[in-house]
Amino acid sequence: MTNITHSTMPLSRSAKALPKNPLRALYPLAARDGMISLANGHPSPDACDHTGLQDALKTAAADPMTWRYGPTAGDPRLRSALADISGDQQDSVVVTSGAQQGIDLTIRTLCNAGDTVLVPEALYPATLSVMAACNVSAYAVPEDVGGICINGLDKAIWDSNARVLYLTPTFGNPTGSVLSEDRRAALLALCARMGVLIIEDDPYRDLWFEAPPPPSLWEMSKSNDARVIALRSCSKSIAPGLRIGWMLTPQEITPHLVAMKQASDLQSSGTAQMVALAYLSSGRFSGWLATVRALYQARHDALQKGLVAAGFDAPAVTGGMFFWARLPEHIDPACLFEATVAQGALYAPGEAFAACSQVNDITRYARFCFASNSLEKISQATDRLADAVHLSTT
Amino acid sequence: MTNITHSTMPLSRSAKALPKNPLRALYPLAARDGMISLANGHPSPDACDHTGLQDALKTAAADPMTWRYGPTAGDPRLRSALADISGDQQDSVVVTSGAQQGIDLTIRTLCNAGDTVLVPEALYPATLSVMAACNVSAYAVPEDVGGICINGLDKAIWDSNARVLYLTPTFGNPTGSVLSEDRRAALLALCARMGVLIIEDDPYRDLWFEAPPPPSLWEMSKSNDARVIALRSCSKSIAPGLRIGWMLTPQEITPHLVAMKQASDLQSSGTAQMVALAYLSSGRFSGWLATVRALYQARHDALQKGLVAAGFDAPAVTGGMFFWARLPEHIDPACLFEATVAQGALYAPGEAFAACSQVNDITRYARFCFASNSLEKISQATDRLADAVHLSTT
Repeated sequence: MTNITHSTMPLSRSAKALPKNPLRALYPLAARDGMISLANGHPSPDACDHTGLQDALKTAAADPMTWRYGPTAGDPRLRSALADISGDQQDSVVVTSGAQQGIDLTIRTLCNAGDTVLVPEALYPATLSVMAACNVSAYAVPEDVGGICINGLDKAIWDSNARVLYLTPTFGNPTGSVLSEDRRAALLALCARMGVLIIEDDPYRDLWFEAPPPPSLWEMSKSNDARVIALRSCSKSIAPGLRIGWMLTPQEITPHLVAMKQASDLQSSGTAQMVALAYLSSGRFSGWLATVRALYQARHDALQKGLVAAGFDAPAVTGGMFFWARLPEHIDPACLFEATVAQGALYAPGEAFAACSQVNDITRYARFCFASNSLEKISQATDRLADAVHLSTT
Repeated sequence: MTNITHSTMPLSRSAKALPKNPLRALYPLAARDGMISLANGHPSPDACDHTGLQDALKTAAADPMTWRYGPTAGDPRLRSALADISGDQQDSVVVTSGAQQGIDLTIRTLCNAGDTVLVPEALYPATLSVMAACNVSAYAVPEDVGGICINGLDKAIWDSNARVLYLTPTFGNPTGSVLSEDRRAALLALCARMGVLIIEDDPYRDLWFEAPPPPSLWEMSKSNDARVIALRSCSKSIAPGLRIGWMLTPQEITPHLVAMKQASDLQSSGTAQMVALAYLSSGRFSGWLATVRALYQARHDALQKGLVAAGFDAPAVTGGMFFWARLPEHIDPACLFEATVAQGALYAPGEAFAACSQVNDITRYARFCFASNSLEKISQATDRLADAVHLSTT
């Protein structure tokens, strides 16, 4: 018999397997004096309707459900308001503590330890954290500029034996790509035929510039045999600090997801739910979204111009928050990153998003967020970036 | 190749194993017109400092962290305020989305599928849900009126091969029992010697009547080799709708718990955190707690009197929210429950709290919450209960 020591401390395989989040590892750099960070995925403080939200807090103060226990699936009034956004029924909506909890709940509810989930080659790293926490493996599906490739997907499904596919088909993180309506239809048909459930992570859908994106996989699945669980969020369109997201789920899975949520946190914060409800009920949401879209589009244009001028291949995107830019050729990625930090700017290196260590060429890419900084800061950051490219080339 | 149907839907073993929460199953009964429920574990709306909380909302409205992303472990100011409550350091505190998330995170971080965790014979059923979600088994440790028995615990540890013990040593749910300081010391020494980590679920600690309870296992472990993770909550002392709890954790486990939390929900609601911070900083908390203690003590006394008059064996407790009362002898538990519901009152049957199906005699007990109802309602409820006992006897 021994005392518990560091080495004998009980620690699950899941806990041991959890990777360090490579984006959170950049936070100390981002916090340096004078640093301009294009690395994070944070909405701009300017994109937060403070006046409307402060009014929402006042309204929430008078609602008893701000303080009391409520239903696990969410307050029925909020579920109804969230359902209205996508023309769904309240029963399809389960409120979550941010879309991150939606990822966790769906993986826990659908997958056993040892299972494999299909994912894009480049993806949001916290999804890989959830999979590690559930002892689930990632199987990378090739992507092109239009999102995941349907050709060869049937073989990937056979080879991986996966029953679940995770993707962000609209303004993808990190790539910014949008799956076309045709490709969506082909994906749904294939997944329906091969018995694969799709987790559609969809937090950026509202942030389009000129025209709305194609219908969601969730919406298209209604006229299709495919099964889709969609994850939505108030984080990019209202405020990330609320930690209110929602799942749209087929009714045969809903009770299982709700039971898993109950084990996980009983219910999402009633305080946050009532603030979100008051804001959505205030009539300000659609007008404010238009403001945010225009703000982000102007920043997108400015950042693209600056990146191209600095030597990056940075194709325009049609919404969301991110560029997936190819580094100037004949430049060492590690040197460029170091030089950029030294100049006082920061981006997220491509390898932070790799589904696995075999993803080809990913170190030659980087994610740049156009949402978080003012036009002036964006201009300063791209000047610094151009200097860093220059210094790394010579 | 087949379409996904209900029967082929991917569903994890965890999701299949999740039990229905027997307390939530009582909600439809509790919602009946005129029903007085003593079954739930909800703080009284009268025990919520609405004036103070509305002021806290106003203060939170001006704080940028109400709306933005923040650190996974919680806002440093809130961690510091929560640490102050127990005389700890900020580094020991990890903010959780209610203590329920603390249970989930600790089990996920400490236990593998197939592991066994020691639990009291009668416990909070949502802990069993977490264990089912993690494919972890419960091994019941005998209890007496003073909480879990130390005699025989070494054998239980050997027999179960468990590395983790979960308990609520202070105003236990459902039993209301308090582990004495001597028994705490013996428990800590034994667990230290045998390499068992203790999860101390401690949400009721502040709700004492005449005198504070013994020091927490967490506090006592500082002068001991035992390892304790304590789970605390704002739900019983401020407001459950906030969904703000916290863990006190040994520093060698903290990064693992934080990584698991990051995968689970990134961070707890900033909105709720800033309201909790503003309330704790307002200076109202300790005065309000005194009000709540007096309120609950009066209700405790009234409910005890009524239960005894109705024929129950309902020993006084010294704080918390619950009686664990033995049903009148020579009465069928199922008949009594049905008769009580028919009379318009509700309690939580003992078997809802059984760690396993082998727990002796548990159907002869029931949990009664004295916190939720006014003195007038308590009097009506015990009158109805007395009628139900009378009807079930004759």
